[in-house]
Amino acid sequence: MTHSLTDDELKEIYTFALGLSRRAGKILLDGIEKRTGEQGGWEADEQVEKMNAVDIVTQTDLDVEAFVKDEIVKRYPSHKFIGEETYSAGSSKEYLITDEPTWCVDPLDGTVNYTHLFPMFCVSIAFILNGNPVVGAIYQPILDTTYSALTGSGAWQNDNHPMKPRQALPFINSPKAPLPAKAPKGCIFSCEWGKDRRDTEGGNMWKKVNSFVNMAAEIGGRGGKGGMVHGVRCLGSATLDLAYVASGAFDIWWEGGCWEWDVAAGICILREAGGLITTANPPANWDTDPIPNVKLGSRLYLAIRPAGDSQGETGRQAQERVVRETWRRVEGLDYSRPRA
Amino acid sequence: MTHSLTDDELKEIYTFALGLSRRAGKILLDGIEKRTGEQGGWEADEQVEKMNAVDIVTQTDLDVEAFVKDEIVKRYPSHKFIGEETYSAGSSKEYLITDEPTWCVDPLDGTVNYTHLFPMFCVSIAFILNGNPVVGAIYQPILDTTYSALTGSGAWQNDNHPMKPRQALPFINSPKAPLPAKAPKGCIFSCEWGKDRRDTEGGNMWKKVNSFVNMAAEIGGRGGKGGMVHGVRCLGSATLDLAYVASGAFDIWWEGGCWEWDVAAGICILREAGGLITTANPPANWDTDPIPNVKLGSRLYLAIRPAGDSQGETGRQAQERVVRETWRRVEGLDYSRPRA
Repeated sequence: MTHSLTDDELKEIYTFALGLSRRAGKILLDGIEKRTGEQGGWEADEQVEKMNAVDIVTQTDLDVEAFVKDEIVKRYPSHKFIGEETYSAGSSKEYLITDEPTWCVDPLDGTVNYTHLFPMFCVSIAFILNGNPVVGAIYQPILDTTYSALTGSGAWQNDNHPMKPRQALPFINSPKAPLPAKAPKGCIFSCEWGKDRRDTEGGNMWKKVNSFVNMAAEIGGRGGKGGMVHGVRCLGSATLDLAYVASGAFDIWWEGGCWEWDVAAGICILREAGGLITTANPPANWDTDPIPNVKLGSRLYLAIRPAGDSQGETGRQAQERVVRETWRRVEGLDYSRPRA
Repeated sequence: MTHSLTDDELKEIYTFALGLSRRAGKILLDGIEKRTGEQGGWEADEQVEKMNAVDIVTQTDLDVEAFVKDEIVKRYPSHKFIGEETYSAGSSKEYLITDEPTWCVDPLDGTVNYTHLFPMFCVSIAFILNGNPVVGAIYQPILDTTYSALTGSGAWQNDNHPMKPRQALPFINSPKAPLPAKAPKGCIFSCEWGKDRRDTEGGNMWKKVNSFVNMAAEIGGRGGKGGMVHGVRCLGSATLDLAYVASGAFDIWWEGGCWEWDVAAGICILREAGGLITTANPPANWDTDPIPNVKLGSRLYLAIRPAGDSQGETGRQAQERVVRETWRRVEGLDYSRPRA
């Protein structure tokens, strides 16, 4: 059954989601202050210092999700809610997103960064209608920066910020910057090592490493697969990887293993900015098979930044070219949904 | 010949360097505005859009170095100046730092990030006396964040910032957080792919990749070398890698190939925060050979974050343990100074 909401209803949901991401981020910052305290302006709270950093994070994670869920349920009692923590605690590991109006939330993406006080962590809030993320709001508390979008109304950095100017995504926008003619050469390639570290030939870690090396090696290297990317970046947050692809800072993001709450908001923002997202795993014929729409619950993602037209090639054609040039160099990853 | 300056002179140099890093960063931001223009609040400047992004960066790089050098020469005419651009344009590729009072500047570290508008770029300004960096100032313009230190007076984030509170480095400071007992397990490992992408067995790219995989792989993997680090991060800026190690966000940074202007300010800040820095390349006996002081011009660096004492182990002992556990897992890199 298809559900529909009016433009005004969607606009209200967008504004609510954006504000909620900032309020949730404030709780994450409070969690950090408990750990750093004050000394030269900061001093440690002895009681808290005795706690384990991982406990604090787990508790903050739960607290933020409870807060976000509570706010959503109060405001939109008829909507469904899927969050990382509630999903993990639930009995089903199925893909739970239906056509119904559904909120999909990661209260803390980049947990390892949060534990270590590295600023690349965020709150991620998406609103999904008929299976498509139509609202996305991402907030980086330490940098006090949002990335957000409402489908059809543009993608923005720092929309509704009281002090900072709102900037359209991608940053280079009129016209958008074309993709490099010899991509992946000239591109920033974003990727993650992830949690699967089994040292097994054919395991995910090795497939990732082989793919990274193909993308990075000199042209002509790796039996012709060398892509000589401009840079390889690993941030430790799938959500922020997508935000930086939407902004144009990263050209290519390739990843397997993350979940719908990690990517739902980012996918909405990326698409609204003009980016392309499909599957990480190359099809049988990487150069001719159709480029499928990404499946939100697939755990396999390849994102290409928004791209402008250039002589003889539209932005979309260039994005598809870069998808194929990436597929040519990467190995298919083995991630599926765990059995119930 | 040993040179000496009074405490007041050094304090003045520190304040000057910190302010200068912010003023130089403003020029980098101006370079970005030329490229992004304004649209929804931003609009493209057509003339500039026709220029190649790389040209703009090269020009900005030169402009910022010229500005910084000019300001230093006006204020301290007797001091020596070494900058990335002036060094590259010079005839000698020798290590030029002597005992004399010397400024060592990278006007733009993280050039690829700057080109792509990814915020992880910075200005790096160090003042070196008797061969030692005694003042360091790093400025991230997009994040409006400084990292700075004057030897003997502490290391700080956002010192002298008009709006933000100054924070001591590392962030967890009283007491400092101990290093993980089973490090590198539990650590964030920061590293870079760099520019040497030759696909050659025994070449730097392969030595780096083998080292990354050893650090990342499960415990027991890689013939016992698996380090199961908590996360692998690649930012694309050696200077900021060091700043994040000083803050405690990264536990270990291992890198070869960068230059004295990339690391001089960061080394000063890291040391003042209580971090350890030595060589990237393991000695013959990684477990027993002495841990040498880093050589500024060596192009080989291994940094460990500031660490607190724990039961039965001082912070310094823990740092040395982590140096050896890293050396055990990494391969010696082949970087030397180019011949004149």
